[in-house]
Amino acid sequence: MDATSRKTTQKLVKLAEDVVAQASAGRNPAVEVPTRSLANVRFNEKKRIIELGGDKQKRLFFNVAQAKKFMQTFLVGAACRELIAEGKTTSIRDLYYLTKHTLGKTKQNTFEEQEESDPIIEDLEVTVDALREELHLFASNKGNLVGEITLVDSGDTIDARRMGSGGWGVPSIVEADVIQFKRHEAKFVLLVEKDAVFRRLNEDRFWKKHHCILIHGGGQPPRGVRRLVHRLHDELSLPVYVLVDNDPWGFYIYSVVKQGSINLAYESMRMAVPRARFLGLSSFDKERFGLPDNVTIQMTEDDERRGKQMLAYPWFEQKPWRREIERMLKSGVKLEIEALSSMGISFITDEYLPKKLREGDWLE
Amino acid sequence: MDATSRKTTQKLVKLAEDVVAQASAGRNPAVEVPTRSLANVRFNEKKRIIELGGDKQKRLFFNVAQAKKFMQTFLVGAACRELIAEGKTTSIRDLYYLTKHTLGKTKQNTFEEQEESDPIIEDLEVTVDALREELHLFASNKGNLVGEITLVDSGDTIDARRMGSGGWGVPSIVEADVIQFKRHEAKFVLLVEKDAVFRRLNEDRFWKKHHCILIHGGGQPPRGVRRLVHRLHDELSLPVYVLVDNDPWGFYIYSVVKQGSINLAYESMRMAVPRARFLGLSSFDKERFGLPDNVTIQMTEDDERRGKQMLAYPWFEQKPWRREIERMLKSGVKLEIEALSSMGISFITDEYLPKKLREGDWLE
Repeated sequence: MDATSRKTTQKLVKLAEDVVAQASAGRNPAVEVPTRSLANVRFNEKKRIIELGGDKQKRLFFNVAQAKKFMQTFLVGAACRELIAEGKTTSIRDLYYLTKHTLGKTKQNTFEEQEESDPIIEDLEVTVDALREELHLFASNKGNLVGEITLVDSGDTIDARRMGSGGWGVPSIVEADVIQFKRHEAKFVLLVEKDAVFRRLNEDRFWKKHHCILIHGGGQPPRGVRRLVHRLHDELSLPVYVLVDNDPWGFYIYSVVKQGSINLAYESMRMAVPRARFLGLSSFDKERFGLPDNVTIQMTEDDERRGKQMLAYPWFEQKPWRREIERMLKSGVKLEIEALSSMGISFITDEYLPKKLREGDWLE
Repeated sequence: MDATSRKTTQKLVKLAEDVVAQASAGRNPAVEVPTRSLANVRFNEKKRIIELGGDKQKRLFFNVAQAKKFMQTFLVGAACRELIAEGKTTSIRDLYYLTKHTLGKTKQNTFEEQEESDPIIEDLEVTVDALREELHLFASNKGNLVGEITLVDSGDTIDARRMGSGGWGVPSIVEADVIQFKRHEAKFVLLVEKDAVFRRLNEDRFWKKHHCILIHGGGQPPRGVRRLVHRLHDELSLPVYVLVDNDPWGFYIYSVVKQGSINLAYESMRMAVPRARFLGLSSFDKERFGLPDNVTIQMTEDDERRGKQMLAYPWFEQKPWRREIERMLKSGVKLEIEALSSMGISFITDEYLPKKLREGDWLE
């Protein structure tokens, strides 16, 4: 068993031992679960990430309202411990089936729906302070990677310079016991929102000319992609550039990469890249690059509402960001990355990105 | 330029030359576009695929209702020809931006929305008889592959036995000029619906023990995955097994892999695998494998409606298929692949699949 697995197992075992000790001492067994509500989420100005505050709530065994959740917490904990011991990983959907039993001869099930087991997993993550991936649970497999790095995935050496047009599929679990970084010549990481843009840049061998690692997350990057980008930034000291659509959804994607999300505030520390740079598309790009009027898309009411919300985010309060968002709102239009193709199919590879990088034209 | 690209270019050039010849002869220039309506789609009993009938419609240049579409057809054709000449590929979204212009000083655009350019692409595909991929256009990148095969992708050698936990990302264009098959020891292809199941089977090295190629398409497989499976079947004579959820959506996924879809009937010949085998989950699996009652999911009204529709499909008219669907409808419940985990996390790898394969327990 590797070091991470040993550590996570110890955390799970300690959780159980504490409860046993309480029971042996004649006390009502309880676990303290950090509160995952909005009221307990804050933006840490210094670290520049969204994180969980210190509020906790007790989950008691002898309490009619909490007994079931108490049982579920340990059921999930036991299943994760077993997964780790067997060296296997599974999806959260699978875990639901793994731990679903009918109790005795009753019609009562341990879980009725996955909506019941998912929050228990999140509770367990915060309670024992272990990422879902460390509990051997995974989310969806999405996103691809190519570029100037060699890495090891489950013992297989992956030379990302020789991954063809498809690239290496970024797995959902990218912890150090699964993925190790080897030789690299990359000077930065470029994370793009869309697989079509990834394909364009890969076909043009952008990563080779500019010595980088190119990744896409197929829209909002899944946990595996975010965690991998975090590790590349953290362990290899590579700057991270993000390229998204010029619309509130694109800005939101960037914002989650940068400081984490409110929902999963407890994992920002290991998922977020506070210094991630917003490369584009900027609300000023249309003028700066002379794009035609006909490639813009009218904002919807929902876009406008979300744009205005963003103005209130503390991580968008610096002047350059306010200018970005206000300009977008004022123009009333959105711009997709693909709109750059109106200037030529490889305009993005040959003109747009090199100019942005050369001139340091990004926001942080 | 490779042979495929040369051939496709010739087809596009011929389309244009025909029109020029008509104009020179003083006739109203026209192209004949095979009709893609439901009325012109049929199930070919002999080939066992859904295909387009012989109906065609004329698209005339001097016709107020058709002039714009006529122009659009050639605009898209010219763009595709250029793409092929440059050796570049692009997304259909990109193509929309590439070909969108404002006409002169009018406010008239060549295309207003992508919904206008997409059907033109499909028209062009059927008219010149070339797959979208041969026109250098791609859909989404989705799906991964691992297993006992070495292939070449854009000049890079991909050993799918050494692709770690993530696998090789199946690109959207997998034509012979991009992807070539090299050495393989695989005895069959296993196409699974879900990435979580792919991960489970890959972690257990199912493909190594059973000598196969393992692919998932992240739900409904994208064109790249379907076309690749078709090529593996066709060129390497590998049987194809499909593993999907036991619900109407899962059956539909299988059905599209097998005989194509009504929407894209004109490409069945090069995408469908009429002899693809349905390995599961069968409506009889719950009893056969002693799964607990609590893992079933109630069918919705929509499920029932779709199930009943399937009974009318000519490709499901054989008795074993009728029994399958009728059983599902009668039980009123669905069963996900993940439900097998209630019997143990690797039950699918160690028991379910080996038993099915050993006993020839599938439908065709």
